[in-house]
Amino acid sequence: MSNKKKIILDCDPGHDDAVALILAHGNPTIDLVAITTIGGNAFLGKVTKNALGIMAKAGIKDVPIAAGCTRPLLREVEEAGDVHGETGLDGVDLPEPEVELDLRHGVDLIIDTIMGSEPGSITLVPTGPLTNIAMAVRKEPAIAERVKEVVLMGGGIHEGNWSAVAEFNIKTDPEAAQIVFDAPWEVTMVGLDVTHQALATEEISARIQNIGTPLSEFVLGLLSFFRKAYKDNQGFDHPPVHDPVAVARVIDPSIVGTVRAPISVECQGSSTLGMTVVDLRPGCTPENCHTQAAQTLDTERFWDLVIDAIQRAG
Amino acid sequence: MSNKKKIILDCDPGHDDAVALILAHGNPTIDLVAITTIGGNAFLGKVTKNALGIMAKAGIKDVPIAAGCTRPLLREVEEAGDVHGETGLDGVDLPEPEVELDLRHGVDLIIDTIMGSEPGSITLVPTGPLTNIAMAVRKEPAIAERVKEVVLMGGGIHEGNWSAVAEFNIKTDPEAAQIVFDAPWEVTMVGLDVTHQALATEEISARIQNIGTPLSEFVLGLLSFFRKAYKDNQGFDHPPVHDPVAVARVIDPSIVGTVRAPISVECQGSSTLGMTVVDLRPGCTPENCHTQAAQTLDTERFWDLVIDAIQRAG
Amino acid sequence: MSNKKKIILDCDPGHDDAVALILAHGNPTIDLVAITTIGGNAFLGKVTKNALGIMAKAGIKDVPIAAGCTRPLLREVEEAGDVHGETGLDGVDLPEPEVELDLRHGVDLIIDTIMGSEPGSITLVPTGPLTNIAMAVRKEPAIAERVKEVVLMGGGIHEGNWSAVAEFNIKTDPEAAQIVFDAPWEVTMVGLDVTHQALATEEISARIQNIGTPLSEFVLGLLSFFRKAYKDNQGFDHPPVHDPVAVARVIDPSIVGTVRAPISVECQGSSTLGMTVVDLRPGCTPENCHTQAAQTLDTERFWDLVIDAIQRAG
Amino acid sequence: MSNKKKIILDCDPGHDDAVALILAHGNPTIDLVAITTIGGNAFLGKVTKNALGIMAKAGIKDVPIAAGCTRPLLREVEEAGDVHGETGLDGVDLPEPEVELDLRHGVDLIIDTIMGSEPGSITLVPTGPLTNIAMAVRKEPAIAERVKEVVLMGGGIHEGNWSAVAEFNIKTDPEAAQIVFDAPWEVTMVGLDVTHQALATEEISARIQNIGTPLSEFVLGLLSFFRKAYKDNQGFDHPPVHDPVAVARVIDPSIVGTVRAPISVECQGSSTLGMTVVDLRPGCTPENCHTQAAQTLDTERFWDLVIDAIQRAG
Repeated sequence: MSNKKKIILDCDPGHDDAVALILAHGNPTIDLVAITTIGGNAFLGKVTKNALGIMAKAGIKDVPIAAGCTRPLLREVEEAGDVHGETGLDGVDLPEPEVELDLRHGVDLIIDTIMGSEPGSITLVPTGPLTNIAMAVRKEPAIAERVKEVVLMGGGIHEGNWSAVAEFNIKTDPEAAQIVFDAPWEVTMVGLDVTHQALATEEISARIQNIGTPLSEFVLGLLSFFRKAYKDNQGFDHPPVHDPVAVARVIDPSIVGTVRAPISVECQGSSTLGMTVVDLRPGCTPENCHTQAAQTLDTERFWDLVIDAIQRAG
Repeated sequence: MSNKKKIILDCDPGHDDAVALILAHGNPTIDLVAITTIGGNAFLGKVTKNALGIMAKAGIKDVPIAAGCTRPLLREVEEAGDVHGETGLDGVDLPEPEVELDLRHGVDLIIDTIMGSEPGSITLVPTGPLTNIAMAVRKEPAIAERVKEVVLMGGGIHEGNWSAVAEFNIKTDPEAAQIVFDAPWEVTMVGLDVTHQALATEEISARIQNIGTPLSEFVLGLLSFFRKAYKDNQGFDHPPVHDPVAVARVIDPSIVGTVRAPISVECQGSSTLGMTVVDLRPGCTPENCHTQAAQTLDTERFWDLVIDAIQRAG
Repeated sequence: MSNKKKIILDCDPGHDDAVALILAHGNPTIDLVAITTIGGNAFLGKVTKNALGIMAKAGIKDVPIAAGCTRPLLREVEEAGDVHGETGLDGVDLPEPEVELDLRHGVDLIIDTIMGSEPGSITLVPTGPLTNIAMAVRKEPAIAERVKEVVLMGGGIHEGNWSAVAEFNIKTDPEAAQIVFDAPWEVTMVGLDVTHQALATEEISARIQNIGTPLSEFVLGLLSFFRKAYKDNQGFDHPPVHDPVAVARVIDPSIVGTVRAPISVECQGSSTLGMTVVDLRPGCTPENCHTQAAQTLDTERFWDLVIDAIQRAG
Repeated sequence: MSNKKKIILDCDPGHDDAVALILAHGNPTIDLVAITTIGGNAFLGKVTKNALGIMAKAGIKDVPIAAGCTRPLLREVEEAGDVHGETGLDGVDLPEPEVELDLRHGVDLIIDTIMGSEPGSITLVPTGPLTNIAMAVRKEPAIAERVKEVVLMGGGIHEGNWSAVAEFNIKTDPEAAQIVFDAPWEVTMVGLDVTHQALATEEISARIQNIGTPLSEFVLGLLSFFRKAYKDNQGFDHPPVHDPVAVARVIDPSIVGTVRAPISVECQGSSTLGMTVVDLRPGCTPENCHTQAAQTLDTERFWDLVIDAIQRAG
């Protein structure tokens, strides 16, 4: 039996989701056991098509992929078109899919994969809105004690991007997020406080260019579009590449420093809707607290991992 | 092909759910094609056990039954123990189950039954919290246009029982209710305004007693416990028998008069949480309004249907 | 000392406020001791000008009048222009004011009048948004036990006009309303359930016309505009004349039947904001309940009072 | 005419309010023109008694002082007894008052003082819940353009003490705070981010002790109680002395660095109630933004000011 870390990537590609997929596939310590898609950065049909295209580009085969929920639990669908463009993955050309979609619903692929694996062996890595994960744990509550942990990209302690204090993935489906943060499993929130440090600077782009493979060209195309979108819309000089940070946390927890503290999701606030409220006050973290929030990122080692994975994925 | 009306009963038995099951089974115009259970009046294990026992008692075979969700989407489980007792069906002895649970999840039995039947042929009749129905339409949005309609027991226009303005089934999982009322299918709300008229008076009990079968004895036992519970807890002289009114509406729409009007579910109010807000103002119902609220009940014909079904189920 | 009932009328004229002023002035059992104005149906400047004009028209002198708050506590100002027109009192010509505004703030006139009168002698009759009353009781909490009672026009049990379940005066400043309903004084809510019965039919108009005085002509002008506005905007055949019903309740409580029950104001709901939640469930009214809601109106005696007052005011 | 900065101190003493009063009185650039009290850290009677005692102790005469509101606009009174003890100022003995309370309500003293002074000459310095200030600007909206600015102690960008993300003064009356932050005047929020840096270390205590006056002994007594209270309740090694930081900002703005950004107060959130939401995202501060939030404190110069004032007040 492999010693690799088994992960299910639940994603909505999306430029940074693409990099997360490549990192999960290329890193030798990760066993990517399933991919599920969720409407988020773009509508479900687009993100699923994008995921299939990225898989073809990166040579990801033999990994089941299934489409999940088309929309948030309560709220209307909201696309992040400003950031990801019309296709959800503007800036690159995608090859034709080389694998077929699993016929199961994404929620069932998640449940089946977890319930069919050894207890404590699967890490859930959601990098989009949390609708699929919430649906899965409500449909089959037993997955909560059977997964190893949930390491998600979303939220933040002191930063927001979809409002002053809320992040896109959480604000898009705050009720799903509340379900996921409240369920009795270990949750690590990799939020904007660290992902805003994962900037694809020109030096990073240069290192990726040096790899000189079709896949590295593809990643460069992604970053190039993302750079312009973040510059135009959020005033960043270099684009933050959010989603692979969650994967990096699974690969090597020492790359992403966390603090253990209670986290609740605001579902009612008039100016705080979708905020992940992290209680950092002294004495306010109970012994059995099951949530952690990322605070620090070892940027250099993070990018080393990403670049290494692009190289290995060939 | 049968001309009977095909229904899926999604229930949480529950004294009045039991009568709803017997009515659906005994009435010759109804084809009960599936039963699903939902944690509500009591925890899922109890209500599922109760449903199996009622099926045995009433001779319901060849109908698939599956257990659904164990708890509301966001809120904590709340049992209506004051009204239904420790077992969720206090006051009667249940026989051993004679059928086995379908291995599928209740949500999937709902989806599979609807998607596997003719479009427009299935009526969903939920008589508990709406968690299963909400999960089903989020997992498979196509059921919304494939069902005939949803006729649910819950809510009310001007009456509440779990707060001044909210009813138990809706208040228990208001977010699920919002999903169900907002989904693009025809919804008829059979609420407290009419079910509080479906009172099991002594005259009704006498008529049931006259049937003189084991099943009529069983129903009498249910009503006897229910009478005391409603007297003690809500000050009713005779117990309202809510759930079969929704089934009666399917059998003969003329028994339950409705008004077409927009209905929204309050998920945020401090004193209105779980209220079904029906907009009866002149000019406020759009042409394409897909929701109706029950306003009147032909009590006599309702009880005739129930008593007839008990006799036929014999 | 007079045996008349002393009232402070806090109003936002407004067509029906005008009738309330005339009723309070013309009825021989009422001693109108102060008038205060509140931004509501129209901006404060307009409603104060309107109040002064009505006073001149109806011969109301020797009654101090002061302008109160310009806007709700938290919410933005919202004018009911559809119902009352550009001036807040379209349809009639107003004479020049004959009295001068009291230099005090309306809130202080309320406080001073109550604190300077015998305990239990003053009835507060608000017929607009409750901002002034809320400010007064927060500034001088002692008025709560010194007034006789508060009899307000606003809210409703089962009817709304500014949303499906909320009335204009309450929805305009729900936080002020919550303060007023929660303060430890006797509150009688005269809401839409009864004021929607106070319809100015053609028969009523004919009776007013028969009076044949300049003031009756003035009232006819008001009703004529109001009739058209309510027909066009809310689909009423005859306009409801809300505000004098509260005054009528003070004159003769037997004209307006009430039920004693807890009333809370919804300040958070997404579709219930500004609803007055009346808990009519059996057993839910505590012994010391200090709130009543109007349920029935003796329409005939109500209009007799109004017509008599127009005649007497001459 | 004096070149001193005229301030109205609206406070709820309270240990740190006492230091704020002494700083305002002792600093040669400040002209303390009025003091108003507000129920907050303790009930209004206590804090007013405390204010009078501190005035006697510090030799503050010829400054009008008036009592304001007894309770928040909507919420119930909440005392901070854990932090300030039974009297609201435990740990010191207070002398008898030497001045009498102004007969006016605190709200009116604020309005009268502002309207009776040169436009742009008065700075409002609230160091308690914002009920008085909110009431004042709603009663007399003209003060908003007549004050110089509002510099308040309360809220925070990234810190909370009364919940994970809310501070006591704001959370106690969030609706009043919303009114104050939304009113069209310049508001500088001096929140926990900086006041948690204003720690009374042992070195500071030693410097105060060296002054060797009765007033310095009094301040030491305050700090000694405060030290223990903060240690026991919030785990601080040294107590933060919040309120004088707002006064220091008025004396010398360079001591408290701020950022201009929109600030809204959350009045509805389930876990964010009372949070001051500061939108620091690039590009989200409009040109006419009228709110600033304190970010940095020059601790050394702050304490120099405080110690100098204690000496001068002698």
